[in-house]
Amino acid sequence: MKTSVGVIGYLGYGGAELVSILGRHPAIERMLLEDRAEVADPPRPRGFKAHERITGMAEAVRREGLSLVFLATHNDVSIQLVPPLLEAGAKVVDLSAAFRLRTPERYARWYGSTHTRPDLLASAVYGLPELNRDPIPSATLLANPGCYPTAVNLALRPLVDAGVIDRSAGIVCDAKSGVSGAGRKPSLITSFCEVTANFSAYSILGHRHVPEVLLTSGLEEAEFSFTAHLLPVERGILETIYFRVKPGQDAASLVNIDEQRYTGEPFVRLYDPGQVPDLRAVVRTNYCDIGVKVDEATGRAVVVAAIDNLVKGAAGQAVQNMNLMLGRPETEGLL
Amino acid sequence: MKTSVGVIGYLGYGGAELVSILGRHPAIERMLLEDRAEVADPPRPRGFKAHERITGMAEAVRREGLSLVFLATHNDVSIQLVPPLLEAGAKVVDLSAAFRLRTPERYARWYGSTHTRPDLLASAVYGLPELNRDPIPSATLLANPGCYPTAVNLALRPLVDAGVIDRSAGIVCDAKSGVSGAGRKPSLITSFCEVTANFSAYSILGHRHVPEVLLTSGLEEAEFSFTAHLLPVERGILETIYFRVKPGQDAASLVNIDEQRYTGEPFVRLYDPGQVPDLRAVVRTNYCDIGVKVDEATGRAVVVAAIDNLVKGAAGQAVQNMNLMLGRPETEGLL
Amino acid sequence: MKTSVGVIGYLGYGGAELVSILGRHPAIERMLLEDRAEVADPPRPRGFKAHERITGMAEAVRREGLSLVFLATHNDVSIQLVPPLLEAGAKVVDLSAAFRLRTPERYARWYGSTHTRPDLLASAVYGLPELNRDPIPSATLLANPGCYPTAVNLALRPLVDAGVIDRSAGIVCDAKSGVSGAGRKPSLITSFCEVTANFSAYSILGHRHVPEVLLTSGLEEAEFSFTAHLLPVERGILETIYFRVKPGQDAASLVNIDEQRYTGEPFVRLYDPGQVPDLRAVVRTNYCDIGVKVDEATGRAVVVAAIDNLVKGAAGQAVQNMNLMLGRPETEGLL
Amino acid sequence: MKTSVGVIGYLGYGGAELVSILGRHPAIERMLLEDRAEVADPPRPRGFKAHERITGMAEAVRREGLSLVFLATHNDVSIQLVPPLLEAGAKVVDLSAAFRLRTPERYARWYGSTHTRPDLLASAVYGLPELNRDPIPSATLLANPGCYPTAVNLALRPLVDAGVIDRSAGIVCDAKSGVSGAGRKPSLITSFCEVTANFSAYSILGHRHVPEVLLTSGLEEAEFSFTAHLLPVERGILETIYFRVKPGQDAASLVNIDEQRYTGEPFVRLYDPGQVPDLRAVVRTNYCDIGVKVDEATGRAVVVAAIDNLVKGAAGQAVQNMNLMLGRPETEGLL
Repeated sequence: MKTSVGVIGYLGYGGAELVSILGRHPAIERMLLEDRAEVADPPRPRGFKAHERITGMAEAVRREGLSLVFLATHNDVSIQLVPPLLEAGAKVVDLSAAFRLRTPERYARWYGSTHTRPDLLASAVYGLPELNRDPIPSATLLANPGCYPTAVNLALRPLVDAGVIDRSAGIVCDAKSGVSGAGRKPSLITSFCEVTANFSAYSILGHRHVPEVLLTSGLEEAEFSFTAHLLPVERGILETIYFRVKPGQDAASLVNIDEQRYTGEPFVRLYDPGQVPDLRAVVRTNYCDIGVKVDEATGRAVVVAAIDNLVKGAAGQAVQNMNLMLGRPETEGLL
Repeated sequence: MKTSVGVIGYLGYGGAELVSILGRHPAIERMLLEDRAEVADPPRPRGFKAHERITGMAEAVRREGLSLVFLATHNDVSIQLVPPLLEAGAKVVDLSAAFRLRTPERYARWYGSTHTRPDLLASAVYGLPELNRDPIPSATLLANPGCYPTAVNLALRPLVDAGVIDRSAGIVCDAKSGVSGAGRKPSLITSFCEVTANFSAYSILGHRHVPEVLLTSGLEEAEFSFTAHLLPVERGILETIYFRVKPGQDAASLVNIDEQRYTGEPFVRLYDPGQVPDLRAVVRTNYCDIGVKVDEATGRAVVVAAIDNLVKGAAGQAVQNMNLMLGRPETEGLL
Repeated sequence: MKTSVGVIGYLGYGGAELVSILGRHPAIERMLLEDRAEVADPPRPRGFKAHERITGMAEAVRREGLSLVFLATHNDVSIQLVPPLLEAGAKVVDLSAAFRLRTPERYARWYGSTHTRPDLLASAVYGLPELNRDPIPSATLLANPGCYPTAVNLALRPLVDAGVIDRSAGIVCDAKSGVSGAGRKPSLITSFCEVTANFSAYSILGHRHVPEVLLTSGLEEAEFSFTAHLLPVERGILETIYFRVKPGQDAASLVNIDEQRYTGEPFVRLYDPGQVPDLRAVVRTNYCDIGVKVDEATGRAVVVAAIDNLVKGAAGQAVQNMNLMLGRPETEGLL
Repeated sequence: MKTSVGVIGYLGYGGAELVSILGRHPAIERMLLEDRAEVADPPRPRGFKAHERITGMAEAVRREGLSLVFLATHNDVSIQLVPPLLEAGAKVVDLSAAFRLRTPERYARWYGSTHTRPDLLASAVYGLPELNRDPIPSATLLANPGCYPTAVNLALRPLVDAGVIDRSAGIVCDAKSGVSGAGRKPSLITSFCEVTANFSAYSILGHRHVPEVLLTSGLEEAEFSFTAHLLPVERGILETIYFRVKPGQDAASLVNIDEQRYTGEPFVRLYDPGQVPDLRAVVRTNYCDIGVKVDEATGRAVVVAAIDNLVKGAAGQAVQNMNLMLGRPETEGLL
């Protein structure tokens, strides 16, 4: 049975990727697209099927019986748009950070503004299926995870749960992202001449994605040092994570913990002990690839995790969540 | 007074950069160039002055009275070439790792072969002027530092000496380098199609530059986690260094320690507390730029250090050392 | 009905792309892969289905009843491998240039060696479906077109046939290709440090693909000036083609000629008069995009044609030909 | 004798390059810098000497006795700023196109607005020293050439003058430029994600630099087909120029014509017949490199010319002109 969905904010990089994935998805019959931006120069999403540019998505939900709407919008826009869409009867997958942090206090601290719908914030389901699958099928408002947190949480959560990390020494996550993570809006920072042949750190020890990592991984803020960097590539996130293991652990034992946790997971690929992924292994896929190396003599460990920030870090994971919410096979349209 | 110098291995990236810098150096009158490689496709060093391609550098030293010879060769080649050059009366600046590690035990462990001239190994001077300037002017065999160690040692040594790092939690150095660091010899790993739009970690927790860091910084191996990464850029190294500071320290106090250490140093540039360099700030210069950020509430610190791997990380530093060895102004030909 | 195919030379960029496309092709059940190269570091083709690494493809054809074998090998290897494969009963799609030029004289002139199987050379079918579809379904040996000729022939042939070009002034094709067109074998010319931030012309007025253009477009050598350039990108070819039109022609009339020729063609996309494609429009697709601009006052015309050199310029077109040879829908596995 | 100069518009890429070159120029003592833009994020020009940010350059000319002011501003801003600067007694080097086209009719046609100072337009000197050196030393208003015209005019003018081109068949110039040529102002077109891994044609047959080529080369509009392309590199222009030569000409005879014309020219480098430059040969230099290939059998010729668009195509040539206007050695500060 085919269905129709809506996408608001389809002209940004995340929204365009979403339209591209949905356009090849066998269960999607039709897309209704809305965007505030001018369309003089829209990205050309390839080969997607029947679609229509509209204004007024909530009305369209009622009129056309849309089952689900994606929001690839800024936080404040998402907070405004979600209530009427839910009232109109649609399920909502929100790719912004508006509903990820669970409490208005956290939202205010990290995003610097008051959350006007704390009720929805509390009821939203965090959509990282590999770590939180159970509530997703019945969610009406799904908060799609951030790109950096997706990779680091998948890499760390099983190890934190297993108690093999010596947390007293802290955990360092040195994260590098392609430029599409900064969005499509032109700025000097993301212009070609500034990015090419360059590499830079930003949001050192204060990135907004940190609370999302803490909430899901179970780590404390004082334990977790995170710095983001801008890579001169279009797509992809690679995170190099450093910590000490407790005595007796080695790369094989850590990979074994991951294997037990991720058995049967279609989108997590584990590498042999000592082997790690590069960015290319995951670009244009919905996979999160994870590799582990440990120096047994000293207990120092490194985990490398890689995803495509626009796929598993945004649009691909949103479709994975949609599949679960609509009762479709989890991998449909994603392999 | 002008002088003549020799360069062996001038066709690799480090050697070509050296020839390019020497070609603009006001005190260099003439260069004698030797290389084992075929010259069908030599890099075109620009605007350099009188030079001559020769074979038999030791004889040329005697014949032409060369004051100094640079070796931009592999370790084993350097070990063979240094003795006859010294005997011929030349000072030698060796850009390889052959004479950096001081003891044959360390050399054997990290480079996997027996050092055949432990006597020279012991007498070589390690040429990182900002941390070891005194013995350089009288050196006859100078071991030019590695690229990664130059940046991390300049970033860490003043802080280690000042005792402000909580070493019990360890120090992490996440290092990223441009592709020229891998040399000019063609390989799949450094081919355009493999590197562009990619990013990868290598030598995780086991890079050969680690012992050089330990020797100069004063850190212990168990304290220091180092991972190298390959950036899709031609030049430049940026290192993001994580540690915890002792109570009472902040970014300002750390920058202040650096300022006291590096006052008057022409090639170290310190950033205001909380500010850090990007790669572009140093590319094609002999500067090492250093910035510090600290989260005072938790004591977590990040230092970002950046150099051009071919300049301050190789050829530029070699010329800086030459200037000191020949009694020239330290910055001559390097600004 | 599903089928099994063989691929010889699956470790080069063209072969890897082929395996990747076949791996998602609904009619392909199983792949047998053969390669002379070591497999210590094979590219990781994603998500492909049942496959097996073998040696001895001709035997495998007999044993397993393979219907078709792809050759992504060098010319001389293809010439050796084709006869036993045909004798074993397989159809062959050859991605090399071995069987494209129809006569041993042309082959000897442009490839510098004697063709040892002129009989097969004469009987091979040139597999550019949009211009030569009829003989493809019954072909047993199919010569898959070169990357540069595919784009320029699709761009020029309808206009040459329609007689709207003033051929007396000559036709210029200024072609630019991504680095994957040079193959996967490491060389200084294709190393990252030489290609990034660079751009260069090669094979000026003497590229081996010229005779393929002449044969298919109907142009004479003296009329056609072709220069290839190396773009600092992984994939894609963009050709800017200059000529004069006969009086009365404008962009609309030229696009109209193309439209009549390519109506119903699934892999040729024509742009509105005055609009032209960029490289991104076609990368990772089997499309050839064509746009036309004409200065009516002077009759000067420019046609821009773009393809992905590894897809429509190699592996994608090979699968398009396979579809036709096996009686499958032409676009199967390619949209 | 040292001098002081002013730069208006020093925050754009051309202006920043100018400040960088002037900062190393031995005859420049001090720079006064003016810019309308905010300086929150100025590019960090390296190692430049005494300078001061001011407002009101004309007053500063009077007050400080500046000998010369550079304008790296838009056309309309230059037209406004030139008169008061000349009145204040400064010589002016204008990097914009405001004073290049000699007549208000041409300016109106190609730049779409009325030129408000046709008197100055008529008296300005076009500053391409290799083709128009004589009037430069006495110029008070110098129009610095555009980037594309500099390369193509240096490549074509000697051959046009020598009468060796068969102009009846037309001349094609296929030009490719790095992104810095589009300026520093953020736009989607020059953002990293749109440019990387891409390549595109623009201003097909209608680029504003065409009239500058016609004026200097002596060609007619109907003879000259020019298309610009955007390369995914920061710097550099490479132009591939196609034409037919008259009978009896070959690459050697064409190079010989160039050699006679450019003997003693410090910034034109000619290649051996059949050899051509790549972009790297000229990036970060003030050279224009030129190579020629001819197919003697058919008379088809290709000339490849390369420059750095920010140096010989803008700031370097501006300093070359300044040297001539101030009676300094032409190459001072440029080698």
